[in-house]
Amino acid sequence: MKKVGIIMGSDSDLPVVEKAVDTLKEFDVPYEVHVYSAHRTPQQVHQFTAEAREKGFGVLIAAAGKAAHLAGSIAAGTTLPVIGIPIKSSTLDGLDALLSTVQMPGGIPVATVAIDGAQNAALLAVQMLAIEDAQLAERLSAQRAQAAEKVLKKNKKIEEEYNA
Amino acid sequence: MKKVGIIMGSDSDLPVVEKAVDTLKEFDVPYEVHVYSAHRTPQQVHQFTAEAREKGFGVLIAAAGKAAHLAGSIAAGTTLPVIGIPIKSSTLDGLDALLSTVQMPGGIPVATVAIDGAQNAALLAVQMLAIEDAQLAERLSAQRAQAAEKVLKKNKKIEEEYNA
Amino acid sequence: MKKVGIIMGSDSDLPVVEKAVDTLKEFDVPYEVHVYSAHRTPQQVHQFTAEAREKGFGVLIAAAGKAAHLAGSIAAGTTLPVIGIPIKSSTLDGLDALLSTVQMPGGIPVATVAIDGAQNAALLAVQMLAIEDAQLAERLSAQRAQAAEKVLKKNKKIEEEYNA
Amino acid sequence: MKKVGIIMGSDSDLPVVEKAVDTLKEFDVPYEVHVYSAHRTPQQVHQFTAEAREKGFGVLIAAAGKAAHLAGSIAAGTTLPVIGIPIKSSTLDGLDALLSTVQMPGGIPVATVAIDGAQNAALLAVQMLAIEDAQLAERLSAQRAQAAEKVLKKNKKIEEEYNA
Amino acid sequence: MKKVGIIMGSDSDLPVVEKAVDTLKEFDVPYEVHVYSAHRTPQQVHQFTAEAREKGFGVLIAAAGKAAHLAGSIAAGTTLPVIGIPIKSSTLDGLDALLSTVQMPGGIPVATVAIDGAQNAALLAVQMLAIEDAQLAERLSAQRAQAAEKVLKKNKKIEEEYNA
Amino acid sequence: MKKVGIIMGSDSDLPVVEKAVDTLKEFDVPYEVHVYSAHRTPQQVHQFTAEAREKGFGVLIAAAGKAAHLAGSIAAGTTLPVIGIPIKSSTLDGLDALLSTVQMPGGIPVATVAIDGAQNAALLAVQMLAIEDAQLAERLSAQRAQAAEKVLKKNKKIEEEYNA
Amino acid sequence: MKKVGIIMGSDSDLPVVEKAVDTLKEFDVPYEVHVYSAHRTPQQVHQFTAEAREKGFGVLIAAAGKAAHLAGSIAAGTTLPVIGIPIKSSTLDGLDALLSTVQMPGGIPVATVAIDGAQNAALLAVQMLAIEDAQLAERLSAQRAQAAEKVLKKNKKIEEEYNA
Amino acid sequence: MKKVGIIMGSDSDLPVVEKAVDTLKEFDVPYEVHVYSAHRTPQQVHQFTAEAREKGFGVLIAAAGKAAHLAGSIAAGTTLPVIGIPIKSSTLDGLDALLSTVQMPGGIPVATVAIDGAQNAALLAVQMLAIEDAQLAERLSAQRAQAAEKVLKKNKKIEEEYNA
Repeated sequence: MKKVGIIMGSDSDLPVVEKAVDTLKEFDVPYEVHVYSAHRTPQQVHQFTAEAREKGFGVLIAAAGKAAHLAGSIAAGTTLPVIGIPIKSSTLDGLDALLSTVQMPGGIPVATVAIDGAQNAALLAVQMLAIEDAQLAERLSAQRAQAAEKVLKKNKKIEEEYNA
Repeated sequence: MKKVGIIMGSDSDLPVVEKAVDTLKEFDVPYEVHVYSAHRTPQQVHQFTAEAREKGFGVLIAAAGKAAHLAGSIAAGTTLPVIGIPIKSSTLDGLDALLSTVQMPGGIPVATVAIDGAQNAALLAVQMLAIEDAQLAERLSAQRAQAAEKVLKKNKKIEEEYNA
Repeated sequence: MKKVGIIMGSDSDLPVVEKAVDTLKEFDVPYEVHVYSAHRTPQQVHQFTAEAREKGFGVLIAAAGKAAHLAGSIAAGTTLPVIGIPIKSSTLDGLDALLSTVQMPGGIPVATVAIDGAQNAALLAVQMLAIEDAQLAERLSAQRAQAAEKVLKKNKKIEEEYNA
Repeated sequence: MKKVGIIMGSDSDLPVVEKAVDTLKEFDVPYEVHVYSAHRTPQQVHQFTAEAREKGFGVLIAAAGKAAHLAGSIAAGTTLPVIGIPIKSSTLDGLDALLSTVQMPGGIPVATVAIDGAQNAALLAVQMLAIEDAQLAERLSAQRAQAAEKVLKKNKKIEEEYNA
Repeated sequence: MKKVGIIMGSDSDLPVVEKAVDTLKEFDVPYEVHVYSAHRTPQQVHQFTAEAREKGFGVLIAAAGKAAHLAGSIAAGTTLPVIGIPIKSSTLDGLDALLSTVQMPGGIPVATVAIDGAQNAALLAVQMLAIEDAQLAERLSAQRAQAAEKVLKKNKKIEEEYNA
Repeated sequence: MKKVGIIMGSDSDLPVVEKAVDTLKEFDVPYEVHVYSAHRTPQQVHQFTAEAREKGFGVLIAAAGKAAHLAGSIAAGTTLPVIGIPIKSSTLDGLDALLSTVQMPGGIPVATVAIDGAQNAALLAVQMLAIEDAQLAERLSAQRAQAAEKVLKKNKKIEEEYNA
Repeated sequence: MKKVGIIMGSDSDLPVVEKAVDTLKEFDVPYEVHVYSAHRTPQQVHQFTAEAREKGFGVLIAAAGKAAHLAGSIAAGTTLPVIGIPIKSSTLDGLDALLSTVQMPGGIPVATVAIDGAQNAALLAVQMLAIEDAQLAERLSAQRAQAAEKVLKKNKKIEEEYNA
Repeated sequence: MKKVGIIMGSDSDLPVVEKAVDTLKEFDVPYEVHVYSAHRTPQQVHQFTAEAREKGFGVLIAAAGKAAHLAGSIAAGTTLPVIGIPIKSSTLDGLDALLSTVQMPGGIPVATVAIDGAQNAALLAVQMLAIEDAQLAERLSAQRAQAAEKVLKKNKKIEEEYNA
């Protein structure tokens, strides 16, 4: 199976990014985690990105805050699909990272998820890998059914408490 | 090859969405175009989505404006990757559609592109299909090289005019 | 009397939603509380909504955060009036939920109240039920008079403290 | 049947408000249209509002732009449900009117629809009147079915053009 | 001397409003403080406003949060200058109150100060009263000189610490 | 009577500012109009401001766009009340000018009106001058009555057209 | 004298960027103009940037719209000061480009000017070059005096028209 | 070497500004720190600014919050490059200070950095001084290499933990 590469712009993004790692583990999807900064280590970003496809990556996930250029920089260096997680920082409540990640110019898409949306970034990566992998698609369906089940249990509990 | 499904919430979104169609044509990626509204025809959205994988779709693209629920509704009904194009309408400059599309809750990702970013939505779909398709990946690289070439030609023209 | 249905997208919305329950109790208006997610349990949303009128509901209240599609999804499935409560979550201060709830396309209205405005959602539901119910209208007037009285008492206390 | 009162803050709001009138006509719901300004004619607003229920109104719709206080002023003077239409004006793209209309304090709800969302304001009023009126509810369902039909026709046309 | 009337929409605004009271005291400007809600006690607002000029008020200050209509309601009922203090509440960081206060339609001005800017509201009231009161103008100049002195002292301390 | 000084940051603001001039004329309030830029001619701003009170000005109105510092600069140089008109320019829809004008730090108030709200700026100036001028207060009341009359005429016309 | 390098992300930015060119010409500051895209031609950006200092550039100006990464990419590749011009595009009124340009993470500054602020970008570049160049500083002072003169002339014209 | 002047509008800005001081120390760049308020001590701002170049300053840094006029006021009084740090205050999350600092009108540039971006303000000042100072440019390169090294160390640590 193709690997998912997770790159964060700073190790301070780790608490958010860990949810992506956990989700990939849950699906037994192989992954690598790296800290590369679009601005402080552009060459590492460039090198990692240029070799990503041949090194067996199928999807890349990039997490960054503020003027979040990381996902765009990575997307500029590969034709693999790149998923961007805008990270909320101490000012502007994540709006800066969201706009810097999603408003990409024509030609270089970034698949953007919600601010701090690391779980969804990983799920989206799994979905991409599952396009041609029926077994993985099955697992996605199963996980979704479980999530639904969880909601219904909570519903039952609340119904019992409130609708008696 | 897997098909790309393009669903727009209203036929008034067509002028934007057409750029996605053109891009898919450029890559000879099979596609279908539909008009289904998350709110006015929820059953059609539901049915289309539920059958999408078995009908040969690999990726779905949804375009909608204002409180743009279409991409999210589709994403709720399939485990195929869903790409959302927020459409700018007459008020709020597209911010409403962007937030309604990208800020999805955990469990149901939507791969969001820029407001009115139909070309990138299609490119992202092609990238997803190219994860396991080396030939398609080649074409993406070739297209990207052409886009770079175009920039460099414009650069040359401007350099000649301004830097003489 | 017709019932009010309160649906929240996640049980984490309960602390806000409880104010709606309390207000309905205050008016002896019958209600039911449910947890259904537009994205994780769309079928339950669909089924609940489709049967709501015949099951004796007169108004539905939906509370959800982020890309809050719940109220819109419910509104798409019934012609009962649907009231949306945008819930503030950890990013963007509730603006995402507000725009996702209120900016509905033509044809499918959602009666939106303030971010986290659960008390007003319930009052609005009571007002709707009171259109044809003079006694309930009386109680609304009485409650409003009490609220005014409360303000005037606070005014008196502050006047005594500051204007002596 | 109860009447719907439509009040606009300025006759410059008429081009938007007319869609509400047309929609009420479509449903044969009786209505009245007035121009009263919360700030320039507060007494007329007060008087109209105070007598609205006894004059046979069941729902009031208020349309205003900028620091749009009209819906809130009306809501303060009656326990009838009040629907607010935020009107887009020359600055801030309607955001000011939206926040001024929807962010009502506890106790005095305004059922807010989208910026310039006059059609939905009228549909919401009809929905409220239809809570206890099965025939009107039928007509709402019929209109909704027609709207769906319209989408499906457009879908068919686009499918024929694009998916051949 | 004319009095300054301070009206707050809720006694929860008191911690902010107290800075206005303190500032008026500092200038020995007579004042009254009241709690009147534009929506919960519109009649008291109306009555207070209608009599304000003849009761010896020269300026009115209104503080309110969210869809802050109080200053506008007061301004609609008198030709005295009305100063609005937008109060920050639990959502949207005060932007809703700011726009609801400042974006008044033509004909009914509200002199808006910064979000939570109670000190400036009081200073502005004093400035208005000082237009025709040379002695009060003197005191404003003196207070401003003191404020400058305070800055210069802080400057000196920081210069000594950092520029040695 | 004290004069009103109108200062605009650029003569491109004149089309908006003219409404302030017209309104002052309407009330026979003496005025002067100047073009001084806070950034391009700070000394003229300083000099004008420093002498304003002794030259017979009672109120100053400042109009500027973008990072609109003019009103604040003027307010820093006088204890006369200063009214700020944020001017909408080609980007950000006036939000930049609004925040730059209204969010003044403690000690230096600017009485801010709506974006492009020149008529209200002038009315506010007249209200300030009318605090101690009963005759001018009368004229304000009369003008307000006329404005109400205008609304009622429009109301009548619309009532005749729509409510027949 | 050191050269100023102007890089725009797309030749569609030229109408804005030309004001920067004109301003540099006015000061006889040598410059070069290039079209390089951070995303479509990252290698050219990298190469140009890496050699910029040794090729005689003293300051770089980068203009880009939407998720404007160009200035940041350039800043990541050189220790020359980099000035960013956020370009307004068809959605979000330039806010996306502003935040993407200015909210740079610690370590890699971008000197950001106003949205579409090309003249100021060039003036800022000249100011930087004038730190050690007394003659250029003189010319800046002279230009500023002319700009002031222009304001005063407009002032005179308006004074004659309005204050007669 | 030319000095860097750091001016803050209030000593409450010191916790942010200290990072600028630390960074300048790191580069052995001489500096002075001052507290001058654009609104409370405009004359000190004016005097400091007017003499700055002849007193040996090469760059000025100004930090201020809310309607942050300080950088613009300083820029209006000198042709030295002026760097603005928008300071986040208790409302609006720094957006007010950002727009008030960056949206300067043509003719008077302010080199704006991120909200609370004091480190980058100092680095930018050093970059400006390094245009003609090869040794300082060396140190900037060295510091940047160290910053990259730091990222790579963190990367190594995370790789070891996650990619084993």
